[in-house]
Amino acid sequence: MIKNKKVNAAILIVGNEILSGRTQDTNTGTIALWLNSLGIKVKEVRVIPDIEETIVDTVNELRKVNDYLFTTGGIGPTHDDITAVSISKAFNLNYEIHQEAFKILEDYYKPGEFNEGRQKMVWMPKGAKLILNPTSGAPGFNVENVFCLPGVPSILKSMLGGLKNDIVGGEPILSHTISLQTVESVIAKSLSKVQDDNNDVEIGSYPFFQAGKLGVSIVIRSEDQSKINRCGSQILEFVNEKKIEVVDR
Amino acid sequence: MIKNKKVNAAILIVGNEILSGRTQDTNTGTIALWLNSLGIKVKEVRVIPDIEETIVDTVNELRKVNDYLFTTGGIGPTHDDITAVSISKAFNLNYEIHQEAFKILEDYYKPGEFNEGRQKMVWMPKGAKLILNPTSGAPGFNVENVFCLPGVPSILKSMLGGLKNDIVGGEPILSHTISLQTVESVIAKSLSKVQDDNNDVEIGSYPFFQAGKLGVSIVIRSEDQSKINRCGSQILEFVNEKKIEVVDR
Repeated sequence: MIKNKKVNAAILIVGNEILSGRTQDTNTGTIALWLNSLGIKVKEVRVIPDIEETIVDTVNELRKVNDYLFTTGGIGPTHDDITAVSISKAFNLNYEIHQEAFKILEDYYKPGEFNEGRQKMVWMPKGAKLILNPTSGAPGFNVENVFCLPGVPSILKSMLGGLKNDIVGGEPILSHTISLQTVESVIAKSLSKVQDDNNDVEIGSYPFFQAGKLGVSIVIRSEDQSKINRCGSQILEFVNEKKIEVVDR
Repeated sequence: MIKNKKVNAAILIVGNEILSGRTQDTNTGTIALWLNSLGIKVKEVRVIPDIEETIVDTVNELRKVNDYLFTTGGIGPTHDDITAVSISKAFNLNYEIHQEAFKILEDYYKPGEFNEGRQKMVWMPKGAKLILNPTSGAPGFNVENVFCLPGVPSILKSMLGGLKNDIVGGEPILSHTISLQTVESVIAKSLSKVQDDNNDVEIGSYPFFQAGKLGVSIVIRSEDQSKINRCGSQILEFVNEKKIEVVDR
């Protein structure tokens, strides 16, 4: 386990339903939080339509510049589920029946229910490693650094746990949030100084509205707790000077 | 107004808070639904970090292959708000005080409250056209086919209405949803035939769970109502044959 290098990932959401605004993506947050806990930072998310050429090109672009690529959506039984065939093309692998997946679904369904539609879900890139699905049977799959998960959020969530041994993370990304009863413009200059003084730490400033009051959450992120502490102290210093109320820290 | 051509757009979400999973993006859905109503299809969404080089490169890539590009986030007063300077660089324009924006915010704030932090929000690419903000004063801006909006969802929503005259859409994208009490595998083959028979119509199939029951929503999308009707009839034909219950249509 390499634990001292930075590990990053991209997420690729395949789905016309997200692009049309019909469905709200929540898988990005689920995957990102889980990856953070493994010490992996999400560098980019893309949402693209169910078009084979677009999927192939985007997969090939993203898998080469990221340690890991996670795709969601497009692995069900209908005509618009084209992730598996697209991944096969991206890797120049045969698209064929995965024997182990076939056996899993043959056992999962009652006799006679493993119909043609469902059999489509066992077609995968040759040699793909299965990602087991404790919720609804049909597995996802993994080729090299690309992990293909379903689009249904509850099913996707249930499958992440099984991936732990296939993913090698870095140092966990730690974060600390300081919430203030103020507006961004009041702290902008001082916060900017703290950022300049700690340029290897990620400091974000996010306005919020809560119980009718305006506030700002400052989020400090780093792999190094002592760096977070240092930024936190510097921030609390100017917060005290400015007599700003700390809501939460 | 050109009304017979297909018009497309990309959305670029700038924000570490989305990539970390801390914040759930909802702006994609808001913008996509609004664009659909203007006859504009979203072809791609990207979420990227607050890194100037990444913003510049992504803006330049997306603005060239889409009729419109909408960015969200990064136009507030703090150090991590770097969309305006990045757009200036992407277009090779000076990054400077926008006089009209300055006047708006000078009038908006009480005397003495238009401080240095807030004044950062009037720095924009030279010649940018303002996007007025009825909620919180600070305007967004528009350069050529790129429209820069804030990240706070309620503020973004309030600004879209003012953009109508700057955006030329195509034929409105119409959609019809048929919800069935079935599972995808039962209809996969028949639905695939309908898609093959109507390959210029977008047909999506989305499983849902409602009141403890499994169902499938079929979404038909096209600019042409008669094409949607034709697909709808073909779908209802096999639905009747298979004695599947229609939940909603």
